Amino acid sequence: MSGPADNGPVEQPGDDHSHGQSDAVRLRLDVSYDGGGFSGWAVQPGRRTVQGTLEAALGVALQIPPPRLTVAGRTDAGVHARGQVSHLDVPAAAAETLEPAVLVRRLARLLPDDVRVRRALVVSTDFDARFAALARCYAYRICTDLAALDPIRRHDVLAWPRPLDVSVMNAAAALLVGEHDFVAFCRQRPGAGTVREVLELCWTADGDRLCCRVVADAFCHQMVRSVVGALVMVGQGGREPSWIQALLDSRSRDSAVRVLPPHGLTLEEVRYPPAPDWAARVATTRSARPMPSPG
Amino acid sequence: MSGPADNGPVEQPGDDHSHGQSDAVRLRLDVSYDGGGFSGWAVQPGRRTVQGTLEAALGVALQIPPPRLTVAGRTDAGVHARGQVSHLDVPAAAAETLEPAVLVRRLARLLPDDVRVRRALVVSTDFDARFAALARCYAYRICTDLAALDPIRRHDVLAWPRPLDVSVMNAAAALLVGEHDFVAFCRQRPGAGTVREVLELCWTADGDRLCCRVVADAFCHQMVRSVVGALVMVGQGGREPSWIQALLDSRSRDSAVRVLPPHGLTLEEVRYPPAPDWAARVATTRSARPMPSPG
Repeated sequence: MSGPADNGPVEQPGDDHSHGQSDAVRLRLDVSYDGGGFSGWAVQPGRRTVQGTLEAALGVALQIPPPRLTVAGRTDAGVHARGQVSHLDVPAAAAETLEPAVLVRRLARLLPDDVRVRRALVVSTDFDARFAALARCYAYRICTDLAALDPIRRHDVLAWPRPLDVSVMNAAAALLVGEHDFVAFCRQRPGAGTVREVLELCWTADGDRLCCRVVADAFCHQMVRSVVGALVMVGQGGREPSWIQALLDSRSRDSAVRVLPPHGLTLEEVRYPPAPDWAARVATTRSARPMPSPG
Repeated sequence: MSGPADNGPVEQPGDDHSHGQSDAVRLRLDVSYDGGGFSGWAVQPGRRTVQGTLEAALGVALQIPPPRLTVAGRTDAGVHARGQVSHLDVPAAAAETLEPAVLVRRLARLLPDDVRVRRALVVSTDFDARFAALARCYAYRICTDLAALDPIRRHDVLAWPRPLDVSVMNAAAALLVGEHDFVAFCRQRPGAGTVREVLELCWTADGDRLCCRVVADAFCHQMVRSVVGALVMVGQGGREPSWIQALLDSRSRDSAVRVLPPHGLTLEEVRYPPAPDWAARVATTRSARPMPSPG
């Protein structure tokens, strides 16, 4: 995998469409990681993944068999996260013996230093890290001066050797805000829709350091890196802003859209409604984007 | 080496006390690097060093034998720099064929991505990266929450697993501002003095992320990491602020002072007077801190 994939068709093991086991306690975990050393979030046999690393550490910390995590944004290999959110159900017996704050401290010592659990919270089983989310917020960082790229930040900032016109990129970005079929910008997966609502999409610049911030209800596979890649092509003068509209209108994947490398991308935040609205949000999300049956 | 060593006794090859060769052009280079992959600034046989890496690339870029660099702050293994400054003398024939901006672009392609030459400037031979400097500015970064340390920043922020009282550390830090004999905080080198003037020394905190910024005319070997280490011992309650005064008064190296790891330390900036004052500053610095003869 090579891009954010918040809404792929593969049923996650935690998504049993139940509201958790009756003797279980649901925990929300806020997670950050340097994606450089991981083959993405999702467990893959024989690969070092964020999910696999976390689940193994949780098993040790809670003294239970490794639990299954459900995640808000299944980031691809090399993509970072500062505000990833996941949840798991823990047998009540195991949860009762361990305060969430103690679990966080224990995980801080158990986990490698490229992945951190920043916070653990007991939540009601109405909460679902994936389906209760209102929006995911990503940032893509670029430095357009090869000589000026801070070496300390080279792992999360893309070096791009050409000037980019931020105002032109923002004019093009405005065309993508709102609900659209983003099929032109997605690596399609059978059974998964490609209609998404982009809530914010804006470039900011501090000298030669550029940041594209994009917020959407959810993202298709590789959507952020494709959207940013297309805007960069506009920003360097290779395409007119109207090309972005043409891509949207084409309703098909366009091989001219470049998927930018993963290391410039960071999942910064996942937004949820207040607790009383979790169940309704889960119901809305599930009905709007029906999942294929597992297996 | 394992700490900043701005004023060690070893004569640098570039320090021939002349004002450069008459047929040479002096270049000032502003350099940044991730110290993690280097055995410090200074060339050492068989080791990957910042100086060695830069000198090799400069030789290729200028099509001359690798030149010798003089540097403002000879950082130790693992210490980073965002605002390092060095100078070199280039044969006029080589300099004439290459604009500084072109040299910077060429170096950006030749150098590995953990070291960058951000800027090159032709300067008069009055300029000396080491002896014309008015002050060096370092930052030491600490996160006191093991769970909250941003994995992306783990290479330049020290994880410290105990709370630190910033106001107490600042009270202790104030005792160190001014001209003092810092022998208690220095790894001594024969022939090198240990009197330095600390111009600024202050901790700031943003939640659990702490930064100690220290500015001095120059630093002895390991001085920043020893000063920060002593302040951290005060900040976590192990010592009273008055212990800092006692260390200063003792006039001897104290093994109780912990030298913090190098990766939390970054050389942020080197300050110089305006060009007309370079020669006077060089004369003042040389007379104030006489260097032993080479060899």
